Amino acid sequence: MTTSSLGKIAVVGSGAVGCYYGGMLAEIGADVHFLMRADLAAVRAGGLTIRTQGKTVHRQVQAHATTAEIGPCDLVIVALKTTANASLDELIPPLLHERTAIVTLQNGLGNEEYLATRWGAERVLGALCFVCLNRTAPGEIVHLDHGTISIGEFGRGLSPRLEALAAALQRAGIEAHPVPNLVTERWRKLVWNIPFNGLAIAAGGATVADVLADPVLRAEARTLMSDVLDGARRLGHEISDEFADFQIERSASMGPYRPSSMIDWQERRPVEIEAIWGEPLRQGQAAGAAMPRLSLLYALLQRLTHTDLLKP
Amino acid sequence: MTTSSLGKIAVVGSGAVGCYYGGMLAEIGADVHFLMRADLAAVRAGGLTIRTQGKTVHRQVQAHATTAEIGPCDLVIVALKTTANASLDELIPPLLHERTAIVTLQNGLGNEEYLATRWGAERVLGALCFVCLNRTAPGEIVHLDHGTISIGEFGRGLSPRLEALAAALQRAGIEAHPVPNLVTERWRKLVWNIPFNGLAIAAGGATVADVLADPVLRAEARTLMSDVLDGARRLGHEISDEFADFQIERSASMGPYRPSSMIDWQERRPVEIEAIWGEPLRQGQAAGAAMPRLSLLYALLQRLTHTDLLKP
Repeated sequence: MTTSSLGKIAVVGSGAVGCYYGGMLAEIGADVHFLMRADLAAVRAGGLTIRTQGKTVHRQVQAHATTAEIGPCDLVIVALKTTANASLDELIPPLLHERTAIVTLQNGLGNEEYLATRWGAERVLGALCFVCLNRTAPGEIVHLDHGTISIGEFGRGLSPRLEALAAALQRAGIEAHPVPNLVTERWRKLVWNIPFNGLAIAAGGATVADVLADPVLRAEARTLMSDVLDGARRLGHEISDEFADFQIERSASMGPYRPSSMIDWQERRPVEIEAIWGEPLRQGQAAGAAMPRLSLLYALLQRLTHTDLLKP
Repeated sequence: MTTSSLGKIAVVGSGAVGCYYGGMLAEIGADVHFLMRADLAAVRAGGLTIRTQGKTVHRQVQAHATTAEIGPCDLVIVALKTTANASLDELIPPLLHERTAIVTLQNGLGNEEYLATRWGAERVLGALCFVCLNRTAPGEIVHLDHGTISIGEFGRGLSPRLEALAAALQRAGIEAHPVPNLVTERWRKLVWNIPFNGLAIAAGGATVADVLADPVLRAEARTLMSDVLDGARRLGHEISDEFADFQIERSASMGPYRPSSMIDWQERRPVEIEAIWGEPLRQGQAAGAAMPRLSLLYALLQRLTHTDLLKP
């Protein structure tokens, strides 16, 4: 399988995640086109820079102002924030030919469904990125830690195109895993994200260490995980209680880590409330899970992030 | 029954509530002694002023710096904030003779128990004050609205001393009701206070109108009430679902009302977290109620009010 087997690639949403994965693919010779807004002029003039694992990748890349300028592709990588999903309705169509695949690297639930509803479920893949990235300047990304990516077909098992994409990412130096049960993986990630990202905001700016150090909040974090497990299981995703216990234990090593949603909130950027809390709540409740703590947490978060009252 | 039948009265905690009820009793000739701290000099010099229902009550009152100075009384009115309850251990003993009654006007649950454990259950009465008061200056109270007070024996039905106290308050112009089931009345008040005082803080400074206008928060307010009803019922206090529905409906007329805990929080004063949320949660859970939303709300509130992170 060669890199060129991926064909022409578009990256929609060229923040840190899009630039990192797209840039690493470009570095091994893939034909990658970036849709850019704020960083367009800087990247056209100075290229894209990725500082990763002690080395610096610097290269000129194909940067575009519109998806019409990019035109039909074989693979579209969606890395927008989920709060901007409505803009996909205009951005995606110019990129499609009959067999274009679309892979969303976005957080939470509902993104594959969004794409599938509009452009056909058969096109859609999804990926979970476990990576710490920082955009330090226009066109400049620092890769701080991790980088694993789990990729799956939406509602299907493994496939040749999935294997090809994972293989290309691996050649680009990224630990990529094809997974046969993408949605289960999404729920597993939510077991951590729902309590720790959520309490971080609702408790007024609480780092992971803050939550773990407060016995009352720590117990709520674990019980929130039980709400998530309940929803997941009723939807057919078996996740064990021990997995949740381990999520609490492993968090101790994170120290005063600020979950990404807390940073978004503190920096007054949109918070991905619906993808991380709203959609899991709706899906779980539709399947018969009560999820009472998630319900209250969601209610508080949707208000806290829609007003400026508490933003520092 | 004459006013003097109440005998010598001490008011411990001479904030707005203590000054109002104590001052109104003094105005009809009762022998009332106020324990004062911050306002002592001002009240000794200028007396106590209560502006109520279009008239102004102004009188010299007996103000003291210590309870030893007051000495044994027939009735002790406790109107401290519950967050200062630990100070009662020193304040109360000098006020007691063998048959001294103690009535707490404090909020929430656990206050009668606090007094009963230390000085005997047979002394204890409690009262719920439905009143809007403002302390506008040292020794100056404005009575804004309401004023009803429900008084009951702790763990007992009606009694002559209870009837005498209620009758004296009525002569002072206060709508006082003796109630045979004080703790049930406390739970009924919590049906409103737990959601509306709690969401006001946890949702970042949400008035009653803000909570009602947000359909997601409004639904959580009602479901929080169901948690409270569950706890109350398991403790033997029958409160109907219709009562909770009515609490939501009647709140519409309150407009942008700031619940008292929200004002405390915004003005960086201690918030009565344990009396309003912690103790009902512990009592309800001990009786087998899950109260999941109250559990999360309490966890958030105890953190939000113990840090300065979010205080405006």
